[in-house]
Amino acid sequence: MDEILVAGQWQAAAAAGSFRATNPGTREELDREFPVSSWQDCDRALTAAVEAGRLLRSCSGQQIATFLSAYADTIEANAETICALAHSETALSIKPRLRDVELPRTTTQLRQAAAAAREGSWMQAVIDTKANIRSHFAPIGPVIVFGPNNFPFAFNGISGGDFAVAIAAGCPVIAKAHPLHPATSRALAECAVAALESARLPAATVQMLYHLGNEDGLRLVSDARVGATSFTGSRTAGMALKTAAEKTGRLIYLEMSSLNPIVYLPGALAERVDALITETADSGLAAAGQFCTSPNLLFLIESNEATTLIEGVTKLYAQRPSTPLFSKMGLEHLDAGVRQLVDGGATVLTGAARAEDAPGFCYRNTVLQTTAREFLANGEVLQKEAFGNVTSFVLCSSLDEMAATLDSLEGNLTGAIYSDTRGLDDAAYDVIAPLLRTKVGRLLNDKMPTGVALSPAMVHGGPFPSSSHPGFTAVGIPRSIARFGALQCYDAVRPNRLPPSLRDKAPHEAMWRQIDGASIRG
Amino acid sequence: MDEILVAGQWQAAAAAGSFRATNPGTREELDREFPVSSWQDCDRALTAAVEAGRLLRSCSGQQIATFLSAYADTIEANAETICALAHSETALSIKPRLRDVELPRTTTQLRQAAAAAREGSWMQAVIDTKANIRSHFAPIGPVIVFGPNNFPFAFNGISGGDFAVAIAAGCPVIAKAHPLHPATSRALAECAVAALESARLPAATVQMLYHLGNEDGLRLVSDARVGATSFTGSRTAGMALKTAAEKTGRLIYLEMSSLNPIVYLPGALAERVDALITETADSGLAAAGQFCTSPNLLFLIESNEATTLIEGVTKLYAQRPSTPLFSKMGLEHLDAGVRQLVDGGATVLTGAARAEDAPGFCYRNTVLQTTAREFLANGEVLQKEAFGNVTSFVLCSSLDEMAATLDSLEGNLTGAIYSDTRGLDDAAYDVIAPLLRTKVGRLLNDKMPTGVALSPAMVHGGPFPSSSHPGFTAVGIPRSIARFGALQCYDAVRPNRLPPSLRDKAPHEAMWRQIDGASIRG
Repeated sequence: MDEILVAGQWQAAAAAGSFRATNPGTREELDREFPVSSWQDCDRALTAAVEAGRLLRSCSGQQIATFLSAYADTIEANAETICALAHSETALSIKPRLRDVELPRTTTQLRQAAAAAREGSWMQAVIDTKANIRSHFAPIGPVIVFGPNNFPFAFNGISGGDFAVAIAAGCPVIAKAHPLHPATSRALAECAVAALESARLPAATVQMLYHLGNEDGLRLVSDARVGATSFTGSRTAGMALKTAAEKTGRLIYLEMSSLNPIVYLPGALAERVDALITETADSGLAAAGQFCTSPNLLFLIESNEATTLIEGVTKLYAQRPSTPLFSKMGLEHLDAGVRQLVDGGATVLTGAARAEDAPGFCYRNTVLQTTAREFLANGEVLQKEAFGNVTSFVLCSSLDEMAATLDSLEGNLTGAIYSDTRGLDDAAYDVIAPLLRTKVGRLLNDKMPTGVALSPAMVHGGPFPSSSHPGFTAVGIPRSIARFGALQCYDAVRPNRLPPSLRDKAPHEAMWRQIDGASIRG
Repeated sequence: MDEILVAGQWQAAAAAGSFRATNPGTREELDREFPVSSWQDCDRALTAAVEAGRLLRSCSGQQIATFLSAYADTIEANAETICALAHSETALSIKPRLRDVELPRTTTQLRQAAAAAREGSWMQAVIDTKANIRSHFAPIGPVIVFGPNNFPFAFNGISGGDFAVAIAAGCPVIAKAHPLHPATSRALAECAVAALESARLPAATVQMLYHLGNEDGLRLVSDARVGATSFTGSRTAGMALKTAAEKTGRLIYLEMSSLNPIVYLPGALAERVDALITETADSGLAAAGQFCTSPNLLFLIESNEATTLIEGVTKLYAQRPSTPLFSKMGLEHLDAGVRQLVDGGATVLTGAARAEDAPGFCYRNTVLQTTAREFLANGEVLQKEAFGNVTSFVLCSSLDEMAATLDSLEGNLTGAIYSDTRGLDDAAYDVIAPLLRTKVGRLLNDKMPTGVALSPAMVHGGPFPSSSHPGFTAVGIPRSIARFGALQCYDAVRPNRLPPSLRDKAPHEAMWRQIDGASIRG
């Protein structure tokens, strides 16, 4: 059985059970056996994390940056092995997806986090020299990262964005790898261990477990030793963890579900319906729809062009081959989810069945349709996320009805509005945009939401239930680091006792601080 | 019966009951009768707040600033009336406390919030011109502010810090006034209404209820129309509201309890024990100890000087007259709390009884003492907050024992360390400070925590249970505004559709924004 990473050592788990991953492209179980950890493993990891957190407080941002950069380098040096493992566990293509897109995204995130740790502006130091009061964000303590199934590198608990920024903040991480890609996670963790040694950070800065029983997961996030938990995954699992953590006053950041409404205004359809058909299918079918930002709800007002869009998208969904979902359970959930939508009043335009002839866990590309009236009457069911290659048109009889329907939405990560490029839709935009704005974290114009740029201005978050706190983002360094910072104030503390970032002279020439009301660098 | 302020109108409540306030200095019930609102009042206020929130989004920061400034002016113009009402409802002195300290603090906060709304830097606008992605904090929606009993102006739901910054963020506020000072709250609300008119803000920007049944309070904070709730008060009430709000994914910020540990290192005692005696009693007895930052746990290592400090503080507590607590219930809670501490092993050095001869709700100034060993063995009981004029010495046999005891503390708002001014305690400081640092929001040197300066660097918050999220502060503008902001991103949105703060040119010359990695003003 494979080993867990606790307290700086690869070691046998105090296992409560074991599991194997499956190749979703062939449905074949893979050879390696991984442990389901017991509470004993969690407890040891927490104890080691607390101690690592103490030691990390005296490590410089430079040292943390050295680790993050070295980790990125090591991942690159082992890219072929890691991509091969990930391909076998996820069926995602080695090229372009894993090797050309996700792995570079992952190393870029690690290097951006390194730069942020080195520079220190993320701490948002504020100095009031007259009152001699100074404050900044300091590490919040051990962070648990539950990675999702759909990004084996870029959102993995051991290598993804949350990992990178928790470390950048100076927090030790206990990664709860996703059990659908354990060998990938182990290979990444080995790179992390090598990089930790070269940067001379505490060995327990990075720890990893593969799998936990539900009760132990709930106990873990509510333990008093935890600074914060970050979770990306299903709403059901997320809400259970949220309840457990918040009951004991622990912080938990969750990214749970999002339908990512797309609004096609009449002028856009009239102007470029063919382009919109391709754009919609390309975005909706990317990675078999298994992105948190996949366009799952498509709003339009009845017209000939609307019919053309619906027929065109349906045709492309029907024509294009299905690609595998990540697991048998994912396939079952998608199937059940689509049936629930159909029971709730949605009409099937294509798909809505398993692709039984495919070698992998495939579902037929699915397009559903409903009316705004049905959606308004039965919103609770029709807003349930079915995660995968399914999208639903919501046909509205008027702009007013579209507005009312959008106003009934729960919170989402993104929302996009397509409009005529010459401004013919501007009046309609002014009705729709303010409503959609309050429902989403990121509002797009004439663009699908599936691309999530690694920009400091990016927001990957949004109103509940897309996330648990609309004031934070999971993508976009340095802003995403703030989740793992505790505000710490020094009131009349003697100069030699201040942390470097709050002394009169900044520890790094590129560090931005607010001093007596002005932003000053260095 | 007095009227509630809903949807811009003073109107009769759909009352579920009524109540009167009591003068805590005389124990006499006051004349005016106020309603306990039913859910119907909450529901109407929420509906009006949602609409006001929509309208506020098209109001400029300048307009909001005009309101906040006019409100401050109006409060000042009515200061004598307001202070007289507050005196009758709280027994706080008109001079210096109400007129010279708390009222100016309140108007300063309102003016600081006005300046922040006008300037707009609180939005933390980030612009990536190359990717054309832009984001900032925008109003989170209707905010419920539950004010505490201990600051009738500066933390009042209708006029205090949370009110000021929620409005500065562009959020309508539903103030849940504290039922111990309803007439004061009404007088303040009348000033707010006058100021709203002069600034031409939506009338329902400010609403006020006086009292609610418990069930309605829980329902209110968990309503989907609420953007966020801010609560300052007891841990019991806070935790009930927290559970209710978080169950439905609503945000709630809580400030609940804090013991504010003070550490006297041996060198400080040797150097200036007499000064420390006075400083401790002055801070601990201010407002009968009814500050969230009152020093309630005093740590020292056994020595002759330690004995001198304990005896000196005890003597002052015994000598000085008791001042009234805010209510009969507060007196009962304090009495029960002290008895619980005594049952938990604390020794009474003075006090620990009601001041039966006093005309008001007075408790005898109380000093307790326990040992570190007892504290470690029975920490759960001995860390229960008894709100009022009681403080407890924790006598440690060694520095190591003191360190272990501090490490066992729950989260607190503040922690202070007194040390020899010539550096004789520096080695001890280096042992104690890192432990205390992680337990508190604000760390002080040689200074009592009861003063909470209105500085942008101030942090009034801390680890659970002192607050519900250590990444936020309730005092310190503009940082305290962040609680009421939702991150909103604009991805490829056309220039004319961007909000003013994200356009190429800033809406205000003093606004700080991050553009392509640099902080730029204007």
